[in-house]
Amino acid sequence: MCHIFSQEAESMQFIYDFEEGRRTDKGLLGGKGANLAEMTHLGLPVPPGFTITTECCMTYLADESFFDTQLKSSIMNAVHKLENKTHKSFTNTIDPLLVSVRSGAKFSMPGMMDTILNLGLNDQRVQAFAQTTSLAFAYDCYRRLLQMYGDVVFGIPKEEFYDLLSNAEQALAKKTDSFTLREQEEVIQSYKEKFFSRNLVFPQDPYEQLFEATKAVFRSWNNQRANVYRELNHIPHNLGTAVNVQSMVFGNSGDQSGTGVVFTRNPATGEGHLFGEFLLNAQGEDVVAGIRTPAPIAELKEQMPTAYADFVHYAKVLEDHYKDMQDIEFTIENEHLYILQTRDGKRTAKAALTIALDLVKEGIISKETALNRVSPEMIDQLIHPVFDSNALKDAELVAAGLPASPGAATGVIVFTAEAAKDFSNMGQKVILVRQETSPEDIEGMIVSEAIVTSRGGMTSHAAVVARGMGTCCITGCEALTVDEQNKQVKCGELLFTEGDIFSVDGTSGKIFLGEIPTVIAENNEELKQLLTWADEVAQLNVRANAETVLDLTTAMDFGATGIGLARTEHMFFGAERVLEMRRLILADSDKEAQDALERLLTFQEEDFYQMYQIVQDKPMVIRLLDPPMHEFLPHEPNDIRQLALKLGKSPLLVEEQIRRLQEANPMLGHRGCRLGITMPTIYQMQVRAIFKSVIRLQKEGQTILPEVMIPLIAEKEELLYIKQFLTSTIEQVFAQEGIEPLPYELGTMIELPRACFIADELAKEADFFSFGTNDLTQMTYGFSRDDIGKFINTYTEKGIMQSDPFQHLDQNGVGSLIRVAVEKARQTKPEMCIGVCGEVGGDPDSIRFFAEIGVDYVSCSPFRIPAARLAVAQAAIN
Amino acid sequence: MCHIFSQEAESMQFIYDFEEGRRTDKGLLGGKGANLAEMTHLGLPVPPGFTITTECCMTYLADESFFDTQLKSSIMNAVHKLENKTHKSFTNTIDPLLVSVRSGAKFSMPGMMDTILNLGLNDQRVQAFAQTTSLAFAYDCYRRLLQMYGDVVFGIPKEEFYDLLSNAEQALAKKTDSFTLREQEEVIQSYKEKFFSRNLVFPQDPYEQLFEATKAVFRSWNNQRANVYRELNHIPHNLGTAVNVQSMVFGNSGDQSGTGVVFTRNPATGEGHLFGEFLLNAQGEDVVAGIRTPAPIAELKEQMPTAYADFVHYAKVLEDHYKDMQDIEFTIENEHLYILQTRDGKRTAKAALTIALDLVKEGIISKETALNRVSPEMIDQLIHPVFDSNALKDAELVAAGLPASPGAATGVIVFTAEAAKDFSNMGQKVILVRQETSPEDIEGMIVSEAIVTSRGGMTSHAAVVARGMGTCCITGCEALTVDEQNKQVKCGELLFTEGDIFSVDGTSGKIFLGEIPTVIAENNEELKQLLTWADEVAQLNVRANAETVLDLTTAMDFGATGIGLARTEHMFFGAERVLEMRRLILADSDKEAQDALERLLTFQEEDFYQMYQIVQDKPMVIRLLDPPMHEFLPHEPNDIRQLALKLGKSPLLVEEQIRRLQEANPMLGHRGCRLGITMPTIYQMQVRAIFKSVIRLQKEGQTILPEVMIPLIAEKEELLYIKQFLTSTIEQVFAQEGIEPLPYELGTMIELPRACFIADELAKEADFFSFGTNDLTQMTYGFSRDDIGKFINTYTEKGIMQSDPFQHLDQNGVGSLIRVAVEKARQTKPEMCIGVCGEVGGDPDSIRFFAEIGVDYVSCSPFRIPAARLAVAQAAIN
Repeated sequence: MCHIFSQEAESMQFIYDFEEGRRTDKGLLGGKGANLAEMTHLGLPVPPGFTITTECCMTYLADESFFDTQLKSSIMNAVHKLENKTHKSFTNTIDPLLVSVRSGAKFSMPGMMDTILNLGLNDQRVQAFAQTTSLAFAYDCYRRLLQMYGDVVFGIPKEEFYDLLSNAEQALAKKTDSFTLREQEEVIQSYKEKFFSRNLVFPQDPYEQLFEATKAVFRSWNNQRANVYRELNHIPHNLGTAVNVQSMVFGNSGDQSGTGVVFTRNPATGEGHLFGEFLLNAQGEDVVAGIRTPAPIAELKEQMPTAYADFVHYAKVLEDHYKDMQDIEFTIENEHLYILQTRDGKRTAKAALTIALDLVKEGIISKETALNRVSPEMIDQLIHPVFDSNALKDAELVAAGLPASPGAATGVIVFTAEAAKDFSNMGQKVILVRQETSPEDIEGMIVSEAIVTSRGGMTSHAAVVARGMGTCCITGCEALTVDEQNKQVKCGELLFTEGDIFSVDGTSGKIFLGEIPTVIAENNEELKQLLTWADEVAQLNVRANAETVLDLTTAMDFGATGIGLARTEHMFFGAERVLEMRRLILADSDKEAQDALERLLTFQEEDFYQMYQIVQDKPMVIRLLDPPMHEFLPHEPNDIRQLALKLGKSPLLVEEQIRRLQEANPMLGHRGCRLGITMPTIYQMQVRAIFKSVIRLQKEGQTILPEVMIPLIAEKEELLYIKQFLTSTIEQVFAQEGIEPLPYELGTMIELPRACFIADELAKEADFFSFGTNDLTQMTYGFSRDDIGKFINTYTEKGIMQSDPFQHLDQNGVGSLIRVAVEKARQTKPEMCIGVCGEVGGDPDSIRFFAEIGVDYVSCSPFRIPAARLAVAQAAIN
Repeated sequence: MCHIFSQEAESMQFIYDFEEGRRTDKGLLGGKGANLAEMTHLGLPVPPGFTITTECCMTYLADESFFDTQLKSSIMNAVHKLENKTHKSFTNTIDPLLVSVRSGAKFSMPGMMDTILNLGLNDQRVQAFAQTTSLAFAYDCYRRLLQMYGDVVFGIPKEEFYDLLSNAEQALAKKTDSFTLREQEEVIQSYKEKFFSRNLVFPQDPYEQLFEATKAVFRSWNNQRANVYRELNHIPHNLGTAVNVQSMVFGNSGDQSGTGVVFTRNPATGEGHLFGEFLLNAQGEDVVAGIRTPAPIAELKEQMPTAYADFVHYAKVLEDHYKDMQDIEFTIENEHLYILQTRDGKRTAKAALTIALDLVKEGIISKETALNRVSPEMIDQLIHPVFDSNALKDAELVAAGLPASPGAATGVIVFTAEAAKDFSNMGQKVILVRQETSPEDIEGMIVSEAIVTSRGGMTSHAAVVARGMGTCCITGCEALTVDEQNKQVKCGELLFTEGDIFSVDGTSGKIFLGEIPTVIAENNEELKQLLTWADEVAQLNVRANAETVLDLTTAMDFGATGIGLARTEHMFFGAERVLEMRRLILADSDKEAQDALERLLTFQEEDFYQMYQIVQDKPMVIRLLDPPMHEFLPHEPNDIRQLALKLGKSPLLVEEQIRRLQEANPMLGHRGCRLGITMPTIYQMQVRAIFKSVIRLQKEGQTILPEVMIPLIAEKEELLYIKQFLTSTIEQVFAQEGIEPLPYELGTMIELPRACFIADELAKEADFFSFGTNDLTQMTYGFSRDDIGKFINTYTEKGIMQSDPFQHLDQNGVGSLIRVAVEKARQTKPEMCIGVCGEVGGDPDSIRFFAEIGVDYVSCSPFRIPAARLAVAQAAIN
């Protein structure tokens, strides 16, 4: 093994200067290295440097001797070239070259050793470095180097260095940045002693520093956290990490220096102007951490016009090159601009949409690319509710901050990520309120409806993460004093504690007290435009699961091509109707049952009439009654007594009847087509109502193709039996109404594993199929959605379930069944219409699967339709 | 179409004399025709005749003109030959040839037109016929011909002729057989008038009679009942029926004539002597209908020694030829023996076993054939209980009859087939008590535990059918006066009504009052012999589902090769144990839980120790706890209060805890491995108990390979998680006990549809699989066994479910899943041990399927093991 690696190594190029690589070299140079190379290639002012390849990492990890025998000399050569380019020296005490050393793998990978800055300083060179800056600054840099080196190379916890520093601060009763040189030297000495105490010595030779740092980064590829991360994200273990060595520039070297983070377009709104912040005399970390509040980028124009003009130029170059909005980090050292990093900028849904459309208008990207630039999840955000403007007038304002991520949300306030998870698990909507957030808070942020921080700007951790998730967020709300320990937040005189309710408007940056009703956002023109393009490439239709007038109207407004599932359960509820339903279920005589059915018929005919008026000539699949009878009956003794009174029956007998209808496992019980078979009169009444309404509409000049769906079929004979009596009922209606028979379709839901296996047989009898993925998932897993609450949290904590199969189709199990069924159905009827009408019908990943196996439509709740339309287009494009 | 048929017809042989066919010609000659031909070929005294082929039937049905143009002349030729053979004439009035006309299709098919006897008689020929017999006899024959002809050819209901006859009987106040000639003539005249009243005339020309009878039989192929029967039994509609025309012989022509039905061996015990009955001066129908009580066949030897000797000879010829016990119908006409029919005789299970073994001993059949001669259902009967002989001593005898079919059963008495079905549907065991039974009673007979008739002999309908089904039966119990109308039976002074309880001993022929306890029959030597042969050819093992000491012992006695499913639920029940289990579930502290677990551990270690002592070195798969926690808790307020008192807890809190554990669908809820994951301590306690007992046995010199099975796995991660903590618990036990780790296996049940699809992945982690077909069937159908009672009767009535999928594997749905899983598992581990442990594991049809897809063993309840062993052998042979 070693031998092979050595042989290969001989023909390898170990190191690439930034001038040599391109962004396509991510495998060899890592993401960061390739990106630096690309920018260098574009002629951007990138501090020069070089990248040690991922192959060197893997070769070293297989055979450590490779480093001394082969890599060392290459690194020294690369440093010599860097000395020539920068006119600085890595070893001399005059004009010292300092470098940063950073890891960088093919895929962004938190968990590896990351960064050492200021490498190359030692006891002598710190003095020389001070001559170009100041002694105080140079000592500060040296102290930071010792700390990072100690952490990365020697594995001494950062906290131990922080403790030493804060001990000194307490002893001297002042902050680090007020330390005298002497005091700084003493801290540095204490750091070195920390090394000694562990029998370690900080190497004074810059090369030795560089070699050890490089090896430490290589080794970090195999540390525990990195391995776990790769396992979780299915990243191969044999890729290795590159090491980027870059000459240092200092944004914190005085008032002619600075640093900033800028988006080439507004990441909140998508508007086409630079958006970002900078801090003078600061390093990049200072902006991101939100410790000082930075200034808007526009102000740089006044303070450093040349650097600003340069930046504007380079920003345009980068955006044109990457064909997308960029998130750029820069540093200014003595008025000289350096670009340190660029990447596609995270953005809100609204911005993503605007930017995508603008880029098409500007001729930079195609419509298909634009469709891929917006995610279905973003569409969901775009159509989320906003606060009712009438209610807002009377709302009590608590405070205002930066509108970091738009949206509107109400919830109970909590002060830690843990509390957010706990409350959320109990079904509460939560608002996470913190001084600032950090990556450890991420799980709490995910479950929160909104995030509020008292510190930080529009590019702080909280803001960036919230926009990415589409979660409503307000940052820099300095009126708030957050006490995370005591679970309270002060705002002037007011004191709020955990569990109080806030309403957060991320669009305006305002926080209100108590709950405020929300309304639906306007269906904006940009979204319509994008979805029109989506429909042009779509290969699947998107229908809605809807049955009420409101939902049907919303579905049509959102562009549903029809109704994939109109449930009829609701038609039996409502005080008047449920009484008739109960009368029917408990009837003592045929007459009583018949009377109840007639009254239900009158109600339902009108219901169907209204439904068809909204849906018009679009298809609407009406599912016959599904739930078991006992769901329509009261269970409380008092309710039962009252019902008996109303129906003129003996309470004892009614109670007995209700008791007999109870089931051990209603989900697996007397429901769906099983009811249709044992109590055919209900299904007969339903189709009479449907066809009478259709005939009424026909007489008014409207042509409807009624589609009736039978639920829970497990046996072909069930379908045959029901089909038979439905058909004759329908013929009866035509005869009674004195009209020629109209065409209609009878189909079935496929929602039991058995139905999937006999789909070829069922297809002979059914005009269409619709997969009920909710029930199919319940049966396939043996999970009752009503009961999984008892163990699902444990499953999630222990990582046993990767995702919720009721939200994302379980492709291995449920998907396999669906695939079997589609194949079998198509054998019998190649052109049969097959749809999906469970929750997963609106889920992008699931839609991709459904597109692949060739279903005709997906059907989802009205509000998920826009996202589904986009997902369908993306499935077609990709 | 017609044209084609005609062309084919030209080259066809339409008619075969009995001398021309063989038993292999069933397709062309029908079963009856082929059988008559075979017997003729063997040289048996079969009344001569000929068979009109099934092809003629289909040709005629396609084109009626075929009959006149082609078939008629062939029939006339065949009749001429028959006249020559019998030296009788079909048309003259001297020595008239009379024939029977019978249908006969390839497959026995009730529902078609059946039989016309005495065909050829007319007003003149009846006089001629009387000269060889008597006028009374000839008139009787003529009357019967008119009735059968009217029914079969003209479609006049039999009942109308019966009515005419009974009117005459009433008017004359005497029975038909006492009628004077004049009175007989009048009845005949009334029959003819019945024809006239419908504008029909009974043809006097014998040929016309024969032609019309033949056509009527042809047409009956397409009648409603025949069509339905073919649909139900998957018999093709294009086979057609043959028509058998045979010269009549008359067992009722005097005291030197007679008829009988004889088995070549005893159909109840299998003993190797002739067994049967005869009636002098009677026709075959008289024996079968049980109207007169016949004499044992042995008596024939004295009464007609020559005929008897002939019969003994021919019986041996037939048995040797067919290599099986025969059921032979014969007629003696004036001391001349004729064989009318032979077929494999129906027999009791005991007889089937004895006969099969004897035939092997006699060198007539092979062991494999013997294994096929006994059905698994018969084995079930052989090991059924008999009445406890101690209890029998005090039992109150009601009456005694013929021991027609052995066995012992207790139930409520009913008097109609409908009542039998009704009571049985309500879960009652029923005893059907009737004067005599007829084919219309068949459904009621199937659901009955025992059948008692007051009339009829050992070969009556009741006796034959009951033996075939293995149902206990007593016939000819003449002490009983059955009043079916008024639902009562008298026995001397005693009067019993519907719902009274009888105990019926079919082996002794005795009926007792009330319930008598039963005991298990001795495991007889013949059965052991057969099952030893079965094991020699078996390709699947048969294990038992058993866990109690009694069941384990029974399983071992019945030859189980191991235990496929030892449930552990019972170990948590019993007053002492369930209290500890409840303490555990409701524990407030770890200490309380731990204490309860320790006490459960002590119990269970002893349980496993005892179980292993019975099973010894045979494999035993122990399933960890499966049911949800709430099954161990009380639900009645009073019980809850008492429990709280015992545990020293607040009743309100306990009630609340119990309430929270309730589930909407327990079958789909928090059970199986889901419990193992959320409450690992229970599974840990269980494996500790298992391994401690195994170590104890090892110290006593016994080596056990523990096999532990985890239920309800849906995700690979569930299995991984549980495996991890079980493995470390097991290692702990080894360490604590200070012994070297022993080998053991951890496997999983495959009982969710999802598990089938990921079987390849699960196989990587599991040492063995066992299909839990009960749960798998529930999930595949979406049926809860607890709830299907609400609709399954409707399903059965309407023919929607062909069979109970919990008794017979649903090969289309559940079977497809199992097939998928076995294929996937074998991809990962070709040699993995895969078993089946649901109810269907003991079902012969299902076993055939499991053998085909290659599982290693089936596991069933102990009493089903002998039948399963045979079924497994048959699957291997066939």
